[in-house]
Amino acid sequence: MTSSNRAPALGFTSDNIAGASPEVVEALVAASAGQANPYGADPYTESVERRLCEIFEREVDVLLVPTGTAANALCLSAMTPPWGNIYCHASSHINNDECGAPAFYTNGAKLVSVDGPAAKMDPAKLLEAARAKVGDVHSTQPACASITQATEQGSVYTVGEIETIGDACKAANIRLHMDGSRFANALVSQGCTPAEMSWKAGVHALSLGATKNGVLAAEAIVLFDRSLAGELAFRRKRAGHLFSKMRFLAAQIDAYLKDDLWLRNARQANAAALRLMQGLGGIEGVEVLGAPEANIVFCKLPEALIEKLLGAGFQFYHDRWGKGVVRFVTAFSTTFEDVDGLVERARAV
Amino acid sequence: MTSSNRAPALGFTSDNIAGASPEVVEALVAASAGQANPYGADPYTESVERRLCEIFEREVDVLLVPTGTAANALCLSAMTPPWGNIYCHASSHINNDECGAPAFYTNGAKLVSVDGPAAKMDPAKLLEAARAKVGDVHSTQPACASITQATEQGSVYTVGEIETIGDACKAANIRLHMDGSRFANALVSQGCTPAEMSWKAGVHALSLGATKNGVLAAEAIVLFDRSLAGELAFRRKRAGHLFSKMRFLAAQIDAYLKDDLWLRNARQANAAALRLMQGLGGIEGVEVLGAPEANIVFCKLPEALIEKLLGAGFQFYHDRWGKGVVRFVTAFSTTFEDVDGLVERARAV
Amino acid sequence: MTSSNRAPALGFTSDNIAGASPEVVEALVAASAGQANPYGADPYTESVERRLCEIFEREVDVLLVPTGTAANALCLSAMTPPWGNIYCHASSHINNDECGAPAFYTNGAKLVSVDGPAAKMDPAKLLEAARAKVGDVHSTQPACASITQATEQGSVYTVGEIETIGDACKAANIRLHMDGSRFANALVSQGCTPAEMSWKAGVHALSLGATKNGVLAAEAIVLFDRSLAGELAFRRKRAGHLFSKMRFLAAQIDAYLKDDLWLRNARQANAAALRLMQGLGGIEGVEVLGAPEANIVFCKLPEALIEKLLGAGFQFYHDRWGKGVVRFVTAFSTTFEDVDGLVERARAV
Amino acid sequence: MTSSNRAPALGFTSDNIAGASPEVVEALVAASAGQANPYGADPYTESVERRLCEIFEREVDVLLVPTGTAANALCLSAMTPPWGNIYCHASSHINNDECGAPAFYTNGAKLVSVDGPAAKMDPAKLLEAARAKVGDVHSTQPACASITQATEQGSVYTVGEIETIGDACKAANIRLHMDGSRFANALVSQGCTPAEMSWKAGVHALSLGATKNGVLAAEAIVLFDRSLAGELAFRRKRAGHLFSKMRFLAAQIDAYLKDDLWLRNARQANAAALRLMQGLGGIEGVEVLGAPEANIVFCKLPEALIEKLLGAGFQFYHDRWGKGVVRFVTAFSTTFEDVDGLVERARAV
Repeated sequence: MTSSNRAPALGFTSDNIAGASPEVVEALVAASAGQANPYGADPYTESVERRLCEIFEREVDVLLVPTGTAANALCLSAMTPPWGNIYCHASSHINNDECGAPAFYTNGAKLVSVDGPAAKMDPAKLLEAARAKVGDVHSTQPACASITQATEQGSVYTVGEIETIGDACKAANIRLHMDGSRFANALVSQGCTPAEMSWKAGVHALSLGATKNGVLAAEAIVLFDRSLAGELAFRRKRAGHLFSKMRFLAAQIDAYLKDDLWLRNARQANAAALRLMQGLGGIEGVEVLGAPEANIVFCKLPEALIEKLLGAGFQFYHDRWGKGVVRFVTAFSTTFEDVDGLVERARAV
Repeated sequence: MTSSNRAPALGFTSDNIAGASPEVVEALVAASAGQANPYGADPYTESVERRLCEIFEREVDVLLVPTGTAANALCLSAMTPPWGNIYCHASSHINNDECGAPAFYTNGAKLVSVDGPAAKMDPAKLLEAARAKVGDVHSTQPACASITQATEQGSVYTVGEIETIGDACKAANIRLHMDGSRFANALVSQGCTPAEMSWKAGVHALSLGATKNGVLAAEAIVLFDRSLAGELAFRRKRAGHLFSKMRFLAAQIDAYLKDDLWLRNARQANAAALRLMQGLGGIEGVEVLGAPEANIVFCKLPEALIEKLLGAGFQFYHDRWGKGVVRFVTAFSTTFEDVDGLVERARAV
Repeated sequence: MTSSNRAPALGFTSDNIAGASPEVVEALVAASAGQANPYGADPYTESVERRLCEIFEREVDVLLVPTGTAANALCLSAMTPPWGNIYCHASSHINNDECGAPAFYTNGAKLVSVDGPAAKMDPAKLLEAARAKVGDVHSTQPACASITQATEQGSVYTVGEIETIGDACKAANIRLHMDGSRFANALVSQGCTPAEMSWKAGVHALSLGATKNGVLAAEAIVLFDRSLAGELAFRRKRAGHLFSKMRFLAAQIDAYLKDDLWLRNARQANAAALRLMQGLGGIEGVEVLGAPEANIVFCKLPEALIEKLLGAGFQFYHDRWGKGVVRFVTAFSTTFEDVDGLVERARAV
Repeated sequence: MTSSNRAPALGFTSDNIAGASPEVVEALVAASAGQANPYGADPYTESVERRLCEIFEREVDVLLVPTGTAANALCLSAMTPPWGNIYCHASSHINNDECGAPAFYTNGAKLVSVDGPAAKMDPAKLLEAARAKVGDVHSTQPACASITQATEQGSVYTVGEIETIGDACKAANIRLHMDGSRFANALVSQGCTPAEMSWKAGVHALSLGATKNGVLAAEAIVLFDRSLAGELAFRRKRAGHLFSKMRFLAAQIDAYLKDDLWLRNARQANAAALRLMQGLGGIEGVEVLGAPEANIVFCKLPEALIEKLLGAGFQFYHDRWGKGVVRFVTAFSTTFEDVDGLVERARAV
């Protein structure tokens, strides 16, 4: 997707401002005709389940839901009692951006921050935290950990890092959840298999993102610990996330996973981010903050440059993470022309 | 929609097995291109809000969600404290078919059954129940009532009946919710205005159904008591029902409401049900149970006939509501040919 | 306790208006001196646990709490998921008089009424209810049943009746809770052993009442299904029911169980009720409604008589259960003089 | 209470290992005779309410509960929506020692740590935190702050400090709760009035401790923001904290407040702590950590000394807050002889 005759896209605020991949839209159109059994007893849902078993090289349980917050909160609700601790990084989406959804779904479990550089949890600190006050009735109890892959800062856990986290969880007898809102971006960044980046490294439940990477609104909960599946069926219904016309969620994910669309989309988003970093990095006064490992670029820009870019219609978040710090997010639909347009404009200032 | 060259649809189990209206699908395709602001700051959402204000002839607050269970549970969660009573008919969807979603969203409010014929609440009984034990700290407290329009049995509250319920709620100082999963079917059945069938009759919050009547998966919470809107924004997010790519919910509802598609769809579904009743009613051994007021037909069929129809591939629920009792549900996509095919087959037995 | 030099007690509204047995008060005084380890690591708590194991003829787990509502709600919270059904009689305390405590503690489980005469659940109806919709994701799921012994109407389940309920629970694969707010009154009424009336008949968890029968404020959760104990320790703390100075709960229950005080108290209460029934039954115009099996008497009284008794300072509930229907509740502290005083006054009218 | 003929008390782990003041026990004995109306309609409860209005020099609403965790969690549940932030110090009891009670009672509100020296919140940091992300639907929302007086470290907020916190709350439009588990100790330490240390400084709701300072098990919720009272009556019942024999909670608090017993008890506890600090401070190798402002003393002791004291039967927590750090807690029942016994033993090592 390096050329198009459309007007350049000026938005770099998030990958959630993109539309949907044509393949996904076509699948939805095709699925819209005729009758199908409701609540997941349709061929699209069956196909998604089969694809995910193949992709993850094992039997998995799958529950489709419309949003990442739903996927995360549902997973966590099955992995902790109401008096449990959920260990996560302070900068994680579940901690900052879901309006307390984990506490709502778990009936009060506690998000406990575990620090670490680059928005990644330090496994040693995790282990220490998860071994404290075990059995002490006055204290909420270690229950599970949740890591974000790729992280909210655009960094990516290596397989080895996930394994170390997984080992810490095993040592502390807690479960591990992965918020894979940008799982595909992380996967193509690491060049490993989906299995290696999840259950083989100790992940029990995965929120497999799709919305940010090419579908309209659909995410898949993928359970490697299949003992969680029974209760999650009830929890999903009870939360209003069981679609009667499930085929419309399923058709999206089915197309997303078919013919490696999800990986192609992620590669484009990552490549666009890299190109953006390289382009901006060559401009005087711009400081690139860390190499982008997925589809997010952080830089420090002069105030005048920020204003010029905004004035030219570009959109991005700035000054949230520090004075002059700008975050650019690319998406599957971000073309190199889109990137080059921004870089050229920046260079012209 | 009285002819088509497609194969006849054999499913009459529910209106949730239908696909989507072409107009809705086209709108979705159109919305899938380009960038749009997330979380409802897009032009589709704005358009939906404007349309609903026009349709209901007043200012309303609107929250789009993907399922009817979400719409109902969210509405109720803003209308009762955790120790409140929600009065509903024993046969209501919130009581039987949402796996306790109201109790989850409200943190424990109690569904209290109020009887009445044809799945409709008796206003006098409602008033009596809602006046009992007020202020008694040992008892859960009257908070709101919820009526389903059209009901789960296919009956429809008249405007006068809703007004009487609304008056009872006002007298008892509780709020009134309407589960309008089949609001359009009820509306065209009654031939009144949306305003007359809702807020003018005393309804504070409406779950406006669309999924069963032509969209893929989208419902609108319409708030006439606008004091509920503030907290519902947080509740929706917290429940994982705030879509990042909100335009895809909005585009569906926008197309649904445009050019009276929702009313045309409902008229077709209701007409198909009427035709089915008339067709089956003329067959010896078939007893029609009440005249269909919307898109649901109940009949009593001989066992042999039920088996023949099932054997011919037709699908419907039977023997759930009594020996030999069959429920047929038609949808916007049910053609007269579909109906006639079933009737002819039944007549042939 | 057939004589005293105190003024006659005029209150018959409930057994919760009585004070405390002298033995219990003395134990509390003795326990109030010196230091003791907090949170149950004190000798009084240990003694209570030992006594309860002896009384129930097996190992049990014990959690002391201050109120019956806490005991019931905590027990139930460990016996059902949030989407579970708790089967109970419509007239039960958990259904009517705890302001939704079960729903709060369970995060939304549903109280489902199962009818039966004399405030007792019909086992056949229980079995039917608990076998419906199992595994249906749209419906809350069978989880446990709760019976009250003695019931809120003063009737008592026989051991055989409890066994039949227990068998139904076993057949439906659900657990059985007993609200034993008046367990002692029922026990002496039936003349069986505590074991026969509880775990031998299929009860998994018992709220063993004491407050109504001679202590100040203390109840014991007795767990026969010991797998429930682990989570209940956290649930109790989390609910604010773990006393730091636990010895003061324990000293009450310890004295209550010592030297059969609990049984002696219950016998006095029951005997007073019987005497009251016999006395009132001999008065023209008075209709005794059922023989009292524990310490509650229901009669129908002429309006004039009700007013005379109230005018004379007697206290009781009337006209709640029907025109002219009066409920008298006796307690461990009700003397025969108290009873005779009321009867004489009634006879004089 | 500077002499006694009892054996010296060796426990310094907490003030919750003490028994009860004789005056309180006597009041309980007196209250145990005769009948009284249940659920708070008794003269003891009325007396407590009157006393608290006098003590706080204004109308207040009062709810009695048996534990501090219940008092705190109930107060907080009325001061935040489920998606609210409760600002507290990281070392606070609600954050560490209540097994998530605030999250349970509030249905998921978030405890957000605000730092500050000596276990006291920094008002500037509080204000900053409480002004962040207001109205942002993705984030839990500022709702209330909770301060502990005296703190868990034994420090005490001055009236001026509370006023500054109160001003910050007002500026951020949030409410202020005070966990006054050791309110009396703080009060006599500061030499101010109860009004000055609470509502005059901006406190809306107070958990007024009594259990640690001389009663068996009773605490008072004191509401200065009287709009909270209505819902708290239902919340208390629903949580199982409404006592039927309320007089037994009330009699304790009534005696506690009568004739300044609560203040006398607190003075003794504080004086004992001061004496302990002075005694230990004079011993070589002992480092007193901060001057005790209430009834808690922190020191650094040589390992050998810790072991000797433990070996002599003394009880206290050590090495939880750092290597060699010991916490001694005195109580109303701690005599100077008790203190001197410990000091002499330490000196002898």
